[in-house]
Amino acid sequence: MQLNLKSFFERTETYFPANTVVSRQADGSLHRYDYGQHCARARRLASAIKLAGIRAGDRVATLGWNTYRHMELYSAVPCMGAVLHTVNIRIADEHVAYIINKAADRMLFVDPDLLPIIERLAGQLPSLEKIVVTGNLPDECSVKGVIAYEEFLEQGEASYEFPDIDENAPCGMCFTSATTGLPKGVVYTHRMLYLHTLGMCAVDSLGIAERDSILPVVPMFHANTWGLPFAAIAVGANMVLPGPQPDAAAILDLIEAERVTFCAAAVTVGVQMARELQQRTRDISSLRELMLGGSATPAALMREFASRHDVSIYTAWGATECAPLATTTHLRRELLDAGEDARIAVRARQGIPVPGVELKVLDEQGRAVSWDDEQAGEIFVRGPWIAETYYEDERSQAGFENGWWKSGDIATVGPDGSLRLVDRAKDLIKSGGEWISSVDIENQLMAHPNIAEAAVVAAPHPRWQERPLAYVVAEAGESVPMADKLRAWLAEYFVKWWLPDDFVTLTALPRTGVGKVDKRELREISARHFVDDEVHTDQEAANK
Amino acid sequence: MQLNLKSFFERTETYFPANTVVSRQADGSLHRYDYGQHCARARRLASAIKLAGIRAGDRVATLGWNTYRHMELYSAVPCMGAVLHTVNIRIADEHVAYIINKAADRMLFVDPDLLPIIERLAGQLPSLEKIVVTGNLPDECSVKGVIAYEEFLEQGEASYEFPDIDENAPCGMCFTSATTGLPKGVVYTHRMLYLHTLGMCAVDSLGIAERDSILPVVPMFHANTWGLPFAAIAVGANMVLPGPQPDAAAILDLIEAERVTFCAAAVTVGVQMARELQQRTRDISSLRELMLGGSATPAALMREFASRHDVSIYTAWGATECAPLATTTHLRRELLDAGEDARIAVRARQGIPVPGVELKVLDEQGRAVSWDDEQAGEIFVRGPWIAETYYEDERSQAGFENGWWKSGDIATVGPDGSLRLVDRAKDLIKSGGEWISSVDIENQLMAHPNIAEAAVVAAPHPRWQERPLAYVVAEAGESVPMADKLRAWLAEYFVKWWLPDDFVTLTALPRTGVGKVDKRELREISARHFVDDEVHTDQEAANK
Repeated sequence: MQLNLKSFFERTETYFPANTVVSRQADGSLHRYDYGQHCARARRLASAIKLAGIRAGDRVATLGWNTYRHMELYSAVPCMGAVLHTVNIRIADEHVAYIINKAADRMLFVDPDLLPIIERLAGQLPSLEKIVVTGNLPDECSVKGVIAYEEFLEQGEASYEFPDIDENAPCGMCFTSATTGLPKGVVYTHRMLYLHTLGMCAVDSLGIAERDSILPVVPMFHANTWGLPFAAIAVGANMVLPGPQPDAAAILDLIEAERVTFCAAAVTVGVQMARELQQRTRDISSLRELMLGGSATPAALMREFASRHDVSIYTAWGATECAPLATTTHLRRELLDAGEDARIAVRARQGIPVPGVELKVLDEQGRAVSWDDEQAGEIFVRGPWIAETYYEDERSQAGFENGWWKSGDIATVGPDGSLRLVDRAKDLIKSGGEWISSVDIENQLMAHPNIAEAAVVAAPHPRWQERPLAYVVAEAGESVPMADKLRAWLAEYFVKWWLPDDFVTLTALPRTGVGKVDKRELREISARHFVDDEVHTDQEAANK
Repeated sequence: MQLNLKSFFERTETYFPANTVVSRQADGSLHRYDYGQHCARARRLASAIKLAGIRAGDRVATLGWNTYRHMELYSAVPCMGAVLHTVNIRIADEHVAYIINKAADRMLFVDPDLLPIIERLAGQLPSLEKIVVTGNLPDECSVKGVIAYEEFLEQGEASYEFPDIDENAPCGMCFTSATTGLPKGVVYTHRMLYLHTLGMCAVDSLGIAERDSILPVVPMFHANTWGLPFAAIAVGANMVLPGPQPDAAAILDLIEAERVTFCAAAVTVGVQMARELQQRTRDISSLRELMLGGSATPAALMREFASRHDVSIYTAWGATECAPLATTTHLRRELLDAGEDARIAVRARQGIPVPGVELKVLDEQGRAVSWDDEQAGEIFVRGPWIAETYYEDERSQAGFENGWWKSGDIATVGPDGSLRLVDRAKDLIKSGGEWISSVDIENQLMAHPNIAEAAVVAAPHPRWQERPLAYVVAEAGESVPMADKLRAWLAEYFVKWWLPDDFVTLTALPRTGVGKVDKRELREISARHFVDDEVHTDQEAANK
């Protein structure tokens, strides 16, 4: 028996044809159908793709939002033997071109509003033989030979039978942005995604079940939508897809209207949701879990969701290289009856490996750090769904070691073995030979009632090599306190030499293509920033 | 990355060393230790077994009750590369000899009170090189060279490192009793048990989690204890082991004292528990699930547990060939808020395949039966943890077909796709060319307030080939009604020619080694039973 995604698809097709997929459309209306229709259309789509000449192992690219058509591609492309390559719609044009060419995608499915990306790349995508627009064709389009999705679908047969695919055959592909240089590709096999799916359904990981209604805010072009479409198909859970350009208001409206039980989003989206709820409240108590990831979740945000909306935020950690789930918050049996504060203290951490994943945190000498929550080290991960290499990339050698993926993320380990993410290795600030965690300072800044968002990065310094510099965004209707006030606020929690040398107020933080704070850009700004001398005296004192 | 059990063992050893394993001992006292101790002892045990000369792939047999030492063997033997062969302690001596010889077990771990089995088989077990008594050595023992478990353990090292084993290597073996002839062996690989374990942790199967305290009444010598020790180790759940000769009172005392959340037992044990609770009640409300299997659970029993004890009974179906889980009760989203009766109607069924398992129900012409809950067919199963052959056995050819296991169990399929077990193929009664389900009649008999247990089997008949004959056991303090009363009771639910020709009152039903009703023995009795002529007239009328 091969571990392939066909078995999951057919389980829901057989047992849960009446469960639903709801999809928010560009005009705000909802498209609604059931898995019976989804599965029939996915078979028809697979058949049409095959008729278009796509063979086993060929890459089929998508450029799209979270829609029912994109989910049909999630079902059809892997099950018919091709490789689903979800292209990030938010990266620079030259990166889109690079990864489509690197993957040698033969076919592309593109949302109508994203077609201009392809128009701009005219003549630069030689491998693409066929382009399907996942909606109506625009009135004017400079791309030749495009076909509308529904017309394309008509060419296939709903009776198409999926082949029984070898579990080690590739079925998915994502590119992840690199610290320096071009994006790096990760290939997923059927086996990896099958096991990742079973892992997500365990009570002690995300516990995805048929009774769930799942709203993935995390984009379908990012890290397999955290695996949620595959898990939903495996158990027949309802899906609620937020469509193009979803904002916090649209997301919250969907949660309320569709009684969503599980929502997954970047931490920054969680922050926006909290703000939007302050403007206009909704009943979002159907949520059994709001899973935030991508960076550390401030405890203040958790308290706000718990006290005002009776919603528990959970933290997950992973990466494109992990398909992407590696760890989740784990509430041990002794915490089940503990108070909210004790639970939030645990939920703010990155947790422990989900069953199947192995993890170690090593210091610079390669020794396991002690479980004191102080000594920090780099997280290494391996497991049956963790990548062991990048796709045709020399950087694989630096990124992997004896089957372990070197995450580049820095964490401490608590006495219970749970991770606390301290920083990205590249985001740590090294001041006078000592490490300062940007994440810790950011979390404390965001706990200030007047601060909505904060980012702390290193500014180069002639004497201390680097010093921390803070960028802050005020809460709506509030203003950012003076620097000495903020420094006093932080001084209650940190030693003096950790305190940022300066605080810069922004109206919004710069973001990367996947919605994370763009620290690369902030560092470029910081490189030109004046550094105050006075603070260093504090560090000299601290270092004595 | 190989899918082997080492990864699960080390997860609990690392993250849940303080969770506990409680084990009821022969004198009724409780042995209690934590997973830290369990894992250290399991490593020491593995090391000692290796030092004793056991190599990868060698079979190590056990003859034992559900104890912490047996669980140490569950951890140690597979992880060190050998094959854990759990021998049924309740089968005939010649079958014990047959399966130990067939497996060519090199080593045996035997509970002190079960040593007489081996004494009786002196000279008939040539492959056994070493025998360890899992307790104190008896004062007198005719078996040469036996060693006590703790003394044997001392020979090993707790620092022993488990090898990284190929996932297709065998790690377990069970024999299942056959309809005719000698037991048939099933071999499990690491991959099968790894995937079975992940499958058990899914919310939509058994949802085994760290927060659980699991009491397996199902014996460790039967079908991998339904996989519970492996699942407990994967998530770090507490284990509560009922020890030697557990009766319903002992089981209920353990559930109450240890706040057990998940208990798994044969249906007959559930019946005994209900009776015992009538004698002396206990608070068993900690149970989130009482899982009964092995035969159909009467709805009356479910109602009793629900109304008197606030406990939900769930049904699972599987077999030694399925490692053993294939289907479980599934409460669909629309039933979550339904009344107790609606939920019991679903929970009394065998449910749908757990994610990963594929299933079909075929009529005698090999066509899928319709989902009308009337047409019955044989259940075929396949999946990554379902056996594809018997161990060196010619009966494999009859038992498997194109990778599907032919279960021999007969079921109907409801409009929701869920199974309803009608009978074992061999237990169906064929009267005048028409099938009669023994299970349906048994359930209705057991719903009678005066009847505790019932079994219906075929009695041979010269004209109708077979006619049903009922064996009944009275509720404690009650007496069995007259035959005409029982016939009238059944006549409300069944056509006349389904009604048993006679009702025989027994003080207890005969049981097989695994606690199921021994229908083979009942059929032998029935073969000599007088068959009343009058009823056949009814069938003649019905067949017209």
